[in-house]
Amino acid sequence: MATLSHHPFLSSKLRLTTKPKLRPICPTAVRMSLQETAPSLAVVGVTGAVGQEFLSVLSDRDFPFRSIKMLASKRSSGRRFKFQGHEYTIEELAAESFDGVDIALFSAGGSISKEFGPIAVEKGTIVVDNSSAFRMDEKVPLVIPEVNPEAMEGIKVGMGKGALIANPNCSTIICLMAATPLHRRAKVLRMVVSTYQAASGAGAAAMEELELQTREVLEGKPPTCQIFKQQYAFNLFSHNAPVLSNGYNEEEMKLVKETRKIWNDINVKVTATCIRVPVMRAHAESVNLQFENPLDEDTARDILMNAPGVVVVDDRASNRFPTPLGVSNKDDVAVGRIRRDVSQDGNHGLDIFVCGDQIRKGAALNAVQIAEMLL
Amino acid sequence: MATLSHHPFLSSKLRLTTKPKLRPICPTAVRMSLQETAPSLAVVGVTGAVGQEFLSVLSDRDFPFRSIKMLASKRSSGRRFKFQGHEYTIEELAAESFDGVDIALFSAGGSISKEFGPIAVEKGTIVVDNSSAFRMDEKVPLVIPEVNPEAMEGIKVGMGKGALIANPNCSTIICLMAATPLHRRAKVLRMVVSTYQAASGAGAAAMEELELQTREVLEGKPPTCQIFKQQYAFNLFSHNAPVLSNGYNEEEMKLVKETRKIWNDINVKVTATCIRVPVMRAHAESVNLQFENPLDEDTARDILMNAPGVVVVDDRASNRFPTPLGVSNKDDVAVGRIRRDVSQDGNHGLDIFVCGDQIRKGAALNAVQIAEMLL
Repeated sequence: MATLSHHPFLSSKLRLTTKPKLRPICPTAVRMSLQETAPSLAVVGVTGAVGQEFLSVLSDRDFPFRSIKMLASKRSSGRRFKFQGHEYTIEELAAESFDGVDIALFSAGGSISKEFGPIAVEKGTIVVDNSSAFRMDEKVPLVIPEVNPEAMEGIKVGMGKGALIANPNCSTIICLMAATPLHRRAKVLRMVVSTYQAASGAGAAAMEELELQTREVLEGKPPTCQIFKQQYAFNLFSHNAPVLSNGYNEEEMKLVKETRKIWNDINVKVTATCIRVPVMRAHAESVNLQFENPLDEDTARDILMNAPGVVVVDDRASNRFPTPLGVSNKDDVAVGRIRRDVSQDGNHGLDIFVCGDQIRKGAALNAVQIAEMLL
Repeated sequence: MATLSHHPFLSSKLRLTTKPKLRPICPTAVRMSLQETAPSLAVVGVTGAVGQEFLSVLSDRDFPFRSIKMLASKRSSGRRFKFQGHEYTIEELAAESFDGVDIALFSAGGSISKEFGPIAVEKGTIVVDNSSAFRMDEKVPLVIPEVNPEAMEGIKVGMGKGALIANPNCSTIICLMAATPLHRRAKVLRMVVSTYQAASGAGAAAMEELELQTREVLEGKPPTCQIFKQQYAFNLFSHNAPVLSNGYNEEEMKLVKETRKIWNDINVKVTATCIRVPVMRAHAESVNLQFENPLDEDTARDILMNAPGVVVVDDRASNRFPTPLGVSNKDDVAVGRIRRDVSQDGNHGLDIFVCGDQIRKGAALNAVQIAEMLL
């Protein structure tokens, strides 16, 4: 198995990747007939944390496919590994990789997407791209299936046309999974978000560095700072994305701009402060909401309890609320601390606290759900 | 030295207590004459994390005293330790402990303060109390020396009268150190705060548990959960304070109510979400501010650069901003990420990110600064 390094604690409480299940859920006979009409897939960036999770999610959801290409950089090409009982060889990504591919899941960084996304589309492939390369492109739908499935209307496998579909940024997906059902009811006018972001958002190497640093600090050694410029273990810092001229970093502006596009509402006001915390693979977000119409906290809780992909964890008596560990390796986004904002008049404000697995719903799961809508 | 357990990593990057300096800053002759008129002190809860820091801060600031009593529970009484070159024996706290004591620094929990605070006052002692017991008592000043020194006007050692003065909660102190200079200029109408709180706020045992759990998780063992009900290592969770009927926890409502009292402004709107993060001894806070009058970010930065007890760390080009480690064992509160809030009109909103040492300015230093004003 070409999984990433599995330290004991990663593989139990904080495992980096879910080992793809070898046993298909469908009986073999049904699976064989499905496979004839099923799409051909490609995974671009298959050795990364999200690439690995693509395979895990495809497996978990028994996503039908007649073939799957494992694509990565030259450095990884030739490596062999098993997936669903079959042996695969990692191929070096090239223009011809997309010949005959119906759906390609990309997670290999923005520059790879910019270079190979249009090539794949030209060859008739539908690209679901996890990078930020095309998210704000007007012609490219930016989709959370539970939130704005209408944005990808008309894009289907079998129409003979390639297309680009962008996966939103992890923080946006996790925030909007909780905020959208409330927005639909009472219209969000303004949202103030503070994030508590995990190492995984910076890739598998960042997770490994957090673990290494933690061991070093516990042993009284100076921490190795290669991925980040400063100590991460037992510390936190402003998100490492470049800071723009308005003082926001790119991660924060993604929340501002992607929310407007996904909600198709250029007037929604959003501000965000994005912080990295020493947590492995799930993000948390403190979200303050201001509504046009009144929405009391009990109604909000009911709405969230009935929202697809959302689980409410809001037990005040026992102080049990969402945590990053509680949602790690889980599909659902957890919401809690649902309460009327005492700083706003009447029932026009709510505070909520949201946690979601960054690699799963924040990236791979959302992309695979988009792919499912293409079938 | 009766310091708390010093693990290698605590004593370097993350040390729990600063070892009191043995060398006085004043020359001995000056010191001797000062000592004759200097107050007699008592430290209540001297074995705790804040109690230890009281000694450290008294030493660092060369606080004058003619005597000092080291008070704690029966369990610790009789233990001996050196402080500033003299040997002291810890005494069991009792009513008579305060006979002849001018100033007592309390940090032994709310119930001890409630029981012994009034007794000490009755005996003519001025009590600076770090617990929440008297903070919202109308007759008790709640003081951050840089913010509202006027609240303790008329209370002085040598007037022959005892008094209670409350030290605000750590999150409030750290937030208001940064927000007050801006409030004075442009009047804060509303403040949305999300905290990233360290283990130290729950005491030395919580810091030790975070370290122990981290070692356990790294070794693949189940984490010991005695102080908190859930895994803290590589995780975060809603603050462990009890949740009130309005859905806020007590920690959050302290920020709401203490701000109103300290600013003497019952109309200021505050909401807060308080979260514990796996950091040792310094808190961080993401603060969104809404102002009555316009305040641009450059003016705000200038104001903060000139504010006492505040240091601005706001280097956008190199992505260097305040961190908990950066302020650990430091007196100043660090402020950065100072930027115009894009979700508010004109210059009526700012986002800032604040870090402060929870044990030092969040507790012991602020209390000792209050004591300095009594001289």
